Amino acid sequence: MDTRTSEQLAERARDALWRDDFASQGLGITFLASGPGHARLAMTVQRHMLNGFGICHGGMLATFCDTALAFASNSYNEKALAVSFAIDFITPARLDEALVAEAREVSRTRRTGVYDVTVTNPAGTLVAVLRGRVQRLPDQPVATD
Amino acid sequence: MDTRTSEQLAERARDALWRDDFASQGLGITFLASGPGHARLAMTVQRHMLNGFGICHGGMLATFCDTALAFASNSYNEKALAVSFAIDFITPARLDEALVAEAREVSRTRRTGVYDVTVTNPAGTLVAVLRGRVQRLPDQPVATD
Amino acid sequence: MDTRTSEQLAERARDALWRDDFASQGLGITFLASGPGHARLAMTVQRHMLNGFGICHGGMLATFCDTALAFASNSYNEKALAVSFAIDFITPARLDEALVAEAREVSRTRRTGVYDVTVTNPAGTLVAVLRGRVQRLPDQPVATD
Amino acid sequence: MDTRTSEQLAERARDALWRDDFASQGLGITFLASGPGHARLAMTVQRHMLNGFGICHGGMLATFCDTALAFASNSYNEKALAVSFAIDFITPARLDEALVAEAREVSRTRRTGVYDVTVTNPAGTLVAVLRGRVQRLPDQPVATD
Repeated sequence: MDTRTSEQLAERARDALWRDDFASQGLGITFLASGPGHARLAMTVQRHMLNGFGICHGGMLATFCDTALAFASNSYNEKALAVSFAIDFITPARLDEALVAEAREVSRTRRTGVYDVTVTNPAGTLVAVLRGRVQRLPDQPVATD
Repeated sequence: MDTRTSEQLAERARDALWRDDFASQGLGITFLASGPGHARLAMTVQRHMLNGFGICHGGMLATFCDTALAFASNSYNEKALAVSFAIDFITPARLDEALVAEAREVSRTRRTGVYDVTVTNPAGTLVAVLRGRVQRLPDQPVATD
Repeated sequence: MDTRTSEQLAERARDALWRDDFASQGLGITFLASGPGHARLAMTVQRHMLNGFGICHGGMLATFCDTALAFASNSYNEKALAVSFAIDFITPARLDEALVAEAREVSRTRRTGVYDVTVTNPAGTLVAVLRGRVQRLPDQPVATD
Repeated sequence: MDTRTSEQLAERARDALWRDDFASQGLGITFLASGPGHARLAMTVQRHMLNGFGICHGGMLATFCDTALAFASNSYNEKALAVSFAIDFITPARLDEALVAEAREVSRTRRTGVYDVTVTNPAGTLVAVLRGRVQRLPDQPVATD
């Protein structure tokens, strides 16, 4: 399979996955880049993402990361479902900050995958790091049309 | 400190924390029970929580758990901030399902705490389990009034 | 399958798994109880388990937990391999302390399982908690004779 | 503080920490490189590290990683204690394989640190990845002489 085909497959999978991803759409997440095994996304911290301490809710940061993980791991147009992830919070994210999440593949076998995601703020400081594990279903395409 | 005072402190901390928790409010989370070291919350899976596969986004489940963790760990009216958590997904949660998250304290020292959270669906099946670690700031009250 | 058969299968799997588990044998681990989905083991902290700070090496505590996880998850006489685990250290374990690890099943499907392990010291204090995930191979028996 | 002093401090801390680390010594762990915030160690899988399936016990891999984490995080000659770690197993490690663990700093504040460790086999294949969190005690030197 040549690079071009891989990139095209990744694009088709991304579009199919994005269409119904109402959670990510509701957080205003956008794509900066994506391709086989990786994804880079943007999200700005909005008022409805804040927790009781006035900073971005850890779950919203986890959602941002989990979306990046989903797009990176489904980029071969073979279904991948997160079975677990762990997140470490480094620096609080504040209202109106434009965050970037970058997901990269650590390991991939036929049935499993491990992905690392970092979230950085506009100053380039690490906000959070997440590591997730997916179950891969190589016989189930993401984009079926 | 008698039980009554502990319960009252927990209530005051919960109210203060909840007031500005726009993320949890936006997910329609409600309280079933809470007190020193524990919390039980409800959340119904809505359309804006779904991912591209038509099931509840893992990040939204993590947010639900993280909120339960926050209320359990801040229940002594001493600030507690999650520094990390790990989540395992067991069973997908579907649109309109009424979920319950239950957080309990595993361990607590002056500066740290570990909490376990389970999410179950109406059939009583485990949807996810989360374990989180908090940093405690015993000199900073949650409710200051 | 009646309870008796389950218990007998668990015993056969345990004996087969134990025979070549040189790592656990080298740590002096012994069985207190085991059966379908659970295991309780004992280990005394010895000099060759200490780290540079004079307390039990975290990796040795993790090994103790991982052994308990292995025996609990292989107790159906179907091979189960840990794919990941996370451990939280609560209280240091000291030389000569007799520790107990208790593993219980959180969830089990045909292909996966999640297990929780606690380690306690003689005072009943939590030393560490571990949560691990296994991949199950239901067609491969642990005890083949 | 100039680089030379940092390197020298790291060396002193390493020597002090290593002297009583009987667990790591018992596994035949050796240093390939170490310095401020990082460490690279070697370990060969021996018979007393095998589990009941005839492969390297996951806990022994975790111990190898945890040692790398300890040396990387204590390299500023300020005490650092692991409070938690999570490990993902990628490829089994077999008897007589010479493994390499590499620890690098993800984040460090006055009181906390996050470190990533990879373990690779002689073929360059990932065996495991670990992420650990430490509590730092900046007022307590590792090497006191």
